[in-house]
Amino acid sequence: MLEINALPNEEKKLTVSEYKGKSLTLLTDKGISVGDTIKISTSDNEFIAILMPRYESADENHIVVKLKSGYNIGIELSKIQFITKVDQRSYQNVSTNDSLLQIRRGGAQHDDWKKEPPPRIALISTGGTIASRIDYRTGGVHAALSASDLYASIPELVKHASIDPEVLLNEYSENLKPEHWTLIANKVSEKVRSGKYHGIIISHGTDTMHYTASALSFALQNLPIPVVLVGAQRSSDRPSSDAALNLIGATIFSVKSNYSGVFVAMHASSSDDVIACHIGTRVRKNHTSRRDAFESIDMMPVALVKGESVEMQPPQQRYVKLQERNNSGHNNFIVKSNFDSRVILLKYYPGFDPDLLSHSIMRSTYRAIILEGTGLGHVSRECIPKIQKAVESGMMVFMTSQCIWGRVRMTVYDTGRDLLDIGVIPLSDTLPETAIVKAMWVIANSNSTESAKKMMQENIANEMTTVTPIMDK
Amino acid sequence: MLEINALPNEEKKLTVSEYKGKSLTLLTDKGISVGDTIKISTSDNEFIAILMPRYESADENHIVVKLKSGYNIGIELSKIQFITKVDQRSYQNVSTNDSLLQIRRGGAQHDDWKKEPPPRIALISTGGTIASRIDYRTGGVHAALSASDLYASIPELVKHASIDPEVLLNEYSENLKPEHWTLIANKVSEKVRSGKYHGIIISHGTDTMHYTASALSFALQNLPIPVVLVGAQRSSDRPSSDAALNLIGATIFSVKSNYSGVFVAMHASSSDDVIACHIGTRVRKNHTSRRDAFESIDMMPVALVKGESVEMQPPQQRYVKLQERNNSGHNNFIVKSNFDSRVILLKYYPGFDPDLLSHSIMRSTYRAIILEGTGLGHVSRECIPKIQKAVESGMMVFMTSQCIWGRVRMTVYDTGRDLLDIGVIPLSDTLPETAIVKAMWVIANSNSTESAKKMMQENIANEMTTVTPIMDK
Repeated sequence: MLEINALPNEEKKLTVSEYKGKSLTLLTDKGISVGDTIKISTSDNEFIAILMPRYESADENHIVVKLKSGYNIGIELSKIQFITKVDQRSYQNVSTNDSLLQIRRGGAQHDDWKKEPPPRIALISTGGTIASRIDYRTGGVHAALSASDLYASIPELVKHASIDPEVLLNEYSENLKPEHWTLIANKVSEKVRSGKYHGIIISHGTDTMHYTASALSFALQNLPIPVVLVGAQRSSDRPSSDAALNLIGATIFSVKSNYSGVFVAMHASSSDDVIACHIGTRVRKNHTSRRDAFESIDMMPVALVKGESVEMQPPQQRYVKLQERNNSGHNNFIVKSNFDSRVILLKYYPGFDPDLLSHSIMRSTYRAIILEGTGLGHVSRECIPKIQKAVESGMMVFMTSQCIWGRVRMTVYDTGRDLLDIGVIPLSDTLPETAIVKAMWVIANSNSTESAKKMMQENIANEMTTVTPIMDK
Repeated sequence: MLEINALPNEEKKLTVSEYKGKSLTLLTDKGISVGDTIKISTSDNEFIAILMPRYESADENHIVVKLKSGYNIGIELSKIQFITKVDQRSYQNVSTNDSLLQIRRGGAQHDDWKKEPPPRIALISTGGTIASRIDYRTGGVHAALSASDLYASIPELVKHASIDPEVLLNEYSENLKPEHWTLIANKVSEKVRSGKYHGIIISHGTDTMHYTASALSFALQNLPIPVVLVGAQRSSDRPSSDAALNLIGATIFSVKSNYSGVFVAMHASSSDDVIACHIGTRVRKNHTSRRDAFESIDMMPVALVKGESVEMQPPQQRYVKLQERNNSGHNNFIVKSNFDSRVILLKYYPGFDPDLLSHSIMRSTYRAIILEGTGLGHVSRECIPKIQKAVESGMMVFMTSQCIWGRVRMTVYDTGRDLLDIGVIPLSDTLPETAIVKAMWVIANSNSTESAKKMMQENIANEMTTVTPIMDK
């Protein structure tokens, strides 16, 4: 039996009727509905493709189709010389409904699912490019789509799981704050405790997706199932969008991974074929625009999704500890979803003003400073008395490295030793971004400065590796 | 005729007599001087190696030798079963002097040099690991060696150039400030204007070497010869030191490069064979400890030094403009070596306190803010009114990306457009580290805020590429 997902009411409008004016007339004339396979000729090209849904503000002069390659393209009506419905091959069991969502709701099914119910995945949408569309007037991108729009845009998903979408937020991720991490963590917790899901996917803007992944890694401990964050570098109604493949990859990993925990799933390379799954505390957005912007730091990704198979990386490359999936229970699952944002990150550079470190506004506003020092964890000697003053006033001062790769080692040079002497705490290979999030979480979840300092030096969610990594870079 | 370098007086003490106590006795007994090729047996091993000089604070129980592989190793006297002088092969034309420096001064010469004088290179030492030694008591590393010590430690250099060393500073680079950039730029200028040199090498700590490289790139315009910064990730008296190969690579590049400008020369990979030469404004220290920590960002290195040959990268990978070397004159050479450090870098993260942007201490202390935003150049919408306030008060606000790779593009998303609207200036693919240095230089070298803003948006030293790079990552 196929699971029937109860979709929110506002999703029902996603039908072919969203095409308007000229494009609606053409499609109606030809008896073509969203989800149909169609053949189109233009002066340049001939395509076999699936008609995709369009969104509210779309103009009436284009239709959007998905090519076999997974790419969506927009085609100008005036360029279409020929268009016809080829078949409904992708949706054999379709009723006469013309809505893709109704199709899905009504009974699209993968062969395997005839034998047993499909794995059920919760999809929590928070916004971002993956849930956005291009404004064809300005060329800009707006947050707009809901989780279920997204699901509707990627018909292939139905093959792998039954997905329950829910819109939690609709924000570009640069606007997300620690309060949102709490909200997301609590929502994930609710889904986990329902016991209904094989995995949870969170669609998220890419700008701060690695910060949220870290936050959830600390907040959600002993997860019984995988929680996978996924985003897109190019919006889902754009020809070169990576949204579909990323979401499919996240779904396959959520269904098939033997490990639970918090992961980020994104393109592994610029070719549109492999999805890399990264540990939530050890991943960074390392490119402004490339589809493979997310990289595991100082290690390989945990898994690669190739086609429908999940290749776990060889164990020797995983010096981290991963927890086994436990579909049958969530007894050990612990949620500590509070964060205290009284943490400041200061990146050191030549000419950095040491007075900033001991300024009274620092002491009144923040409980901890994360230093992004140079090299193995250094700042200029002029900073040392000022840091000492900050430490003496009760602030916690932690050291990370702006090199990104490698680990802070403060016993090697005089500067490092002097900093250790005055109470600066080295965070080994904790990434600066992860260190900020961890400090916010630790402050909210500890009883004293001493216990907070201790927690910062302990490995909680693979953010700080205690053995020398095989992959040094 | 071989150039005779006038070395500072303090260098003369670098003789075998620096070995003391037991090690001095042993070496004197065997008639072995620094620079001699010797054969040593221990219980584990047998080496053919060159005896290296030792430094003031060294204990008397070790000698240091350089293996054929280029590695220096320390050998404990008590483990030596057999030691003998094999020959003075490396220094055929040596007088009876026992000092390596005297050897060099007295007449070591490369075959080619019999025909014409060797290329002359100025070596300016500023300190750092490359000019440091291990404290065998604590295991830590101290800044200690002078440029000429360094030269003495790497006998191979004599093959490639006649090197004039000068000690300008003796600082780990985390202690260097914009005032030091001015000092270094002025010293380089003096050497360039002397007309005596084929190239200039600056030995430098690696922590902020890329900041100094940027600073010199802006300060020294229309350089007629290459200026090459070089450092080491492991100190030169350590077995695994990269100092020798880096300095040899920097020397070969300085001698053979057809291009002038400011470059950084460091290991290209973790194997000890190829040196990469990076453009001064486009390089970053991307690992805390690896020897190949320095990487060109968004491009390939300009050149690779393999053995004694310099391979310039194919032109299609150089979308930057490099200036041809001009050994014959320095008429167009311009020095603008002042920097104004009233610039603050603020890296954005979720939970970042927007009030910091508009705080009065910001406005009284700084003239410009470099934002290290997320993704294509974003901060949260809560920051926007605060940034507006900063801009209205006369501060310049520039945007770079914490992604490191890629370029800021603020027209794509609402957040970016809003930031542009209030006067935030995007810096395309200028690296955050380079942007700080450039802003400090621009403020010191412009007449008005308007001209400063204009200069920040112009490409001055390949820091901002105007065409799409071939190598996207």
